[in-house]
Amino acid sequence: MWLRTSCELTFLIEVPTPFVLMLRPRSGAQQWVAREEYRLTPSVPAFEFTDDYGNLCQRLIAPPGDFTVYTAAEVMTADHVDRAPGAPFVEVQNLPDAVLGYLLPSRYCESDRFGWMATDITAGRLPGYDQVAAIEDWLRVTIRYAPGSSDIPLSAVEVNARQSGVCRDLAHLGIALCRSLAIPARMVVGYLYGLEPMDLHAWFEAYIAGRWYTFDATQVELKGGYVAIGYGRDAADVAIYNQFGPAVSSAAQQVLVRRLKG
Amino acid sequence: MWLRTSCELTFLIEVPTPFVLMLRPRSGAQQWVAREEYRLTPSVPAFEFTDDYGNLCQRLIAPPGDFTVYTAAEVMTADHVDRAPGAPFVEVQNLPDAVLGYLLPSRYCESDRFGWMATDITAGRLPGYDQVAAIEDWLRVTIRYAPGSSDIPLSAVEVNARQSGVCRDLAHLGIALCRSLAIPARMVVGYLYGLEPMDLHAWFEAYIAGRWYTFDATQVELKGGYVAIGYGRDAADVAIYNQFGPAVSSAAQQVLVRRLKG
Amino acid sequence: MWLRTSCELTFLIEVPTPFVLMLRPRSGAQQWVAREEYRLTPSVPAFEFTDDYGNLCQRLIAPPGDFTVYTAAEVMTADHVDRAPGAPFVEVQNLPDAVLGYLLPSRYCESDRFGWMATDITAGRLPGYDQVAAIEDWLRVTIRYAPGSSDIPLSAVEVNARQSGVCRDLAHLGIALCRSLAIPARMVVGYLYGLEPMDLHAWFEAYIAGRWYTFDATQVELKGGYVAIGYGRDAADVAIYNQFGPAVSSAAQQVLVRRLKG
Amino acid sequence: MWLRTSCELTFLIEVPTPFVLMLRPRSGAQQWVAREEYRLTPSVPAFEFTDDYGNLCQRLIAPPGDFTVYTAAEVMTADHVDRAPGAPFVEVQNLPDAVLGYLLPSRYCESDRFGWMATDITAGRLPGYDQVAAIEDWLRVTIRYAPGSSDIPLSAVEVNARQSGVCRDLAHLGIALCRSLAIPARMVVGYLYGLEPMDLHAWFEAYIAGRWYTFDATQVELKGGYVAIGYGRDAADVAIYNQFGPAVSSAAQQVLVRRLKG
Repeated sequence: MWLRTSCELTFLIEVPTPFVLMLRPRSGAQQWVAREEYRLTPSVPAFEFTDDYGNLCQRLIAPPGDFTVYTAAEVMTADHVDRAPGAPFVEVQNLPDAVLGYLLPSRYCESDRFGWMATDITAGRLPGYDQVAAIEDWLRVTIRYAPGSSDIPLSAVEVNARQSGVCRDLAHLGIALCRSLAIPARMVVGYLYGLEPMDLHAWFEAYIAGRWYTFDATQVELKGGYVAIGYGRDAADVAIYNQFGPAVSSAAQQVLVRRLKG
Repeated sequence: MWLRTSCELTFLIEVPTPFVLMLRPRSGAQQWVAREEYRLTPSVPAFEFTDDYGNLCQRLIAPPGDFTVYTAAEVMTADHVDRAPGAPFVEVQNLPDAVLGYLLPSRYCESDRFGWMATDITAGRLPGYDQVAAIEDWLRVTIRYAPGSSDIPLSAVEVNARQSGVCRDLAHLGIALCRSLAIPARMVVGYLYGLEPMDLHAWFEAYIAGRWYTFDATQVELKGGYVAIGYGRDAADVAIYNQFGPAVSSAAQQVLVRRLKG
Repeated sequence: MWLRTSCELTFLIEVPTPFVLMLRPRSGAQQWVAREEYRLTPSVPAFEFTDDYGNLCQRLIAPPGDFTVYTAAEVMTADHVDRAPGAPFVEVQNLPDAVLGYLLPSRYCESDRFGWMATDITAGRLPGYDQVAAIEDWLRVTIRYAPGSSDIPLSAVEVNARQSGVCRDLAHLGIALCRSLAIPARMVVGYLYGLEPMDLHAWFEAYIAGRWYTFDATQVELKGGYVAIGYGRDAADVAIYNQFGPAVSSAAQQVLVRRLKG
Repeated sequence: MWLRTSCELTFLIEVPTPFVLMLRPRSGAQQWVAREEYRLTPSVPAFEFTDDYGNLCQRLIAPPGDFTVYTAAEVMTADHVDRAPGAPFVEVQNLPDAVLGYLLPSRYCESDRFGWMATDITAGRLPGYDQVAAIEDWLRVTIRYAPGSSDIPLSAVEVNARQSGVCRDLAHLGIALCRSLAIPARMVVGYLYGLEPMDLHAWFEAYIAGRWYTFDATQVELKGGYVAIGYGRDAADVAIYNQFGPAVSSAAQQVLVRRLKG
């Protein structure tokens, strides 16, 4: 399906403030960006670079006053999310080098502390896809998805203690559980068509049978319409913005996703 | 200045034909892409990747029949090209690792064969910027800039023998001469506002005093308005398209650059 | 000074077990590896790759029985650690792209939770080197260095709560404090000549005034003799070995560093 | 088989001369480096980096006088070279991104000028391995292998005109022919056990059926015993040394490869 996505961030800046932004979807295996726009108001110089995960990031210094970042894109994305019951686990020795880093614990995914729990949740499942599907189901049933409930990211340990969280938090726990079973897992931040309430979204991917598969415990049933903006080990890597210096006092965020005829 | 660039390539395809395209300008130190569009007609799946030089490339299989690639962008670019007379040569041992590759000879820049000539052309000049400026001047005076005169890229040796060439060919000779003096040099393909006749353009950059500077022997005087699409060692790396399989029988190319109020 | 370093790890393996090892020092800005040896007993196929941080890693499957990894090197390293009181803070907008990732929180360095504390510790210091020196001093005075006190890595939050830790733990807290001040910081694992008791060591580096500087709160006074094996965001990235599958029941580790005439 | 390789280069230096060296074999898919040594006489600071092709390179400034670089290694390498008659061609659209660059023409491999010839040489062969085997056979029969016959690298066009060349030259022509058929091909520099006369050696690899295969037209029959030092598009990328500034007046080179019990 063709989607038109947009995100507008507004900040009230008091002193010149460095930002690193990550809001520019790129064409990739799962999506094609046909049109894209990136507007800064007021207009300031911005410098773009590719981070270690392949994301396009922008650096700039926001001037005092109202500062708005507006991005929009027209993206072709899959109508359905690929599912692959029975797809086999990839032994560590056979993983591509570039995927190994997604086995390690990270800021919000303390996979070193979830071994027993993951084994328990996936008991009786075939190693690989079916394990991750069991984790996704377990998250759906066990952890209350509460949009808006946390401002700062919660780590997997914290989410598990609190038994509720936002999309990002559920992804953190899912990722930690996968990694503790030696299944590479990564976080994705982006848009999801039809999300209620509409906002930026986060989900996770697991590497199974030679490719990445999408999982999302916030949705009862996975439909298509996912548009990825950034990939990383967890929310620390894929913040849509990082701001340095004195905290910025106020920020509004408006996200829209609509379907285009096509 | 704000520019709107566009390029439309039309091919007549007989059998399904793999293409690698490089037509998507990226924001960088010298330019900011505020809006961008990429349209394939008919619409086919395309996969994007970043090559070794940081260029965004697209892979696709063109189906039989008319096939059109249309790209457009709105780009903020410098009004003036930086010049730096007297800027010093960087000793090889002080070059950044990532720049060293631009000292080596490449397909169309046989820098291993121009040592004496480069020394001669730059006699009496300070090592660094002034040497490259002397090379640029020498190219302007010596090699006839003849747009449309060569279909396939000419190497520096060939350009020097023929004493004329298109923008790409002059760049090849300029790059070969720089490298033979141990000055890193690379090719840039992109747009130039006001180019006559309008077409895609090629120029070169040399690494001096810690940064890349723009040189373009096809222009009597360098003005601003350059929009880079791709960087590489020479035309082999920055072909705007590479096509594999039986040669495609026909191709039209329409390039437009106009200035936006800004 | 010239050092001869060696490390022998012995494992008792029950089932074929995949390992990723990181034990091979590389020549770099601070050290030159003149001779190097890497012996697996029994000999098994090992595959080497470079991870995202530039470390040389080896993958292999350890067979059941005793399994020994022995590495040794002769390395030229600095007699003194560079110190640079007054060296200035680099504004975020001026940091090299490749350094930005070292500003982010990571598994064991929850820099997002140390802002006030870091500000407090460094009150009155010039931004940059002097801030990090203050952090290093504060760690020395406040956190008890207790070799052997923790088996698993402690995160900065945990170290701060416990007020003691091994070298790795102190480094985690130092790194978290630096990053919370927008000073890039990274962990180094390696050897230190004269360490008591001799073992593998960990310290941290901070990026100041355009380069990385060494800090080590476990030593009263920094002398030379550091040999780096691996760099990363924290201990999750620079484990000298990661083992997958059922935990390995026993491991011995013998580390030697002696000075060579030279 | 286990091999002990060594290479000693001696230069007579008149003025301080920057060098980039590439003499350090690395463990990889085909070989395991168990022991390695790198000695500079006189000892000077050397800085190591990894180039775009994954090779370990060293930068240094050679001081006036005699300057010697000695490297030695103990390497486990395959007893036999893998052959795979019938292994299929990989369509361009299915090649890994990182392999695409090896389809492009390069300094010494003008693959853009060999289309008809390659088609002719491989007439009647299955696309893929059999085509490359036909090219290797054709080189063996047609191009006289004349060790010591060329000092500077010859390009594929030049080798084809001259009908003779050293190992490096034959590899250039083989690579150019492969690429003109859309088969990725790259140059390898290294050691070969039993080479007569003993020297550094060069051969090429082609990417077929999802991996790289070794080809070497200088040998009547491929036996094992290859130790790779460097990979690249052609000799421009894998010079074992690049020297900058006034040419160095004299150089001796001694290469030894002997078999170890093991």
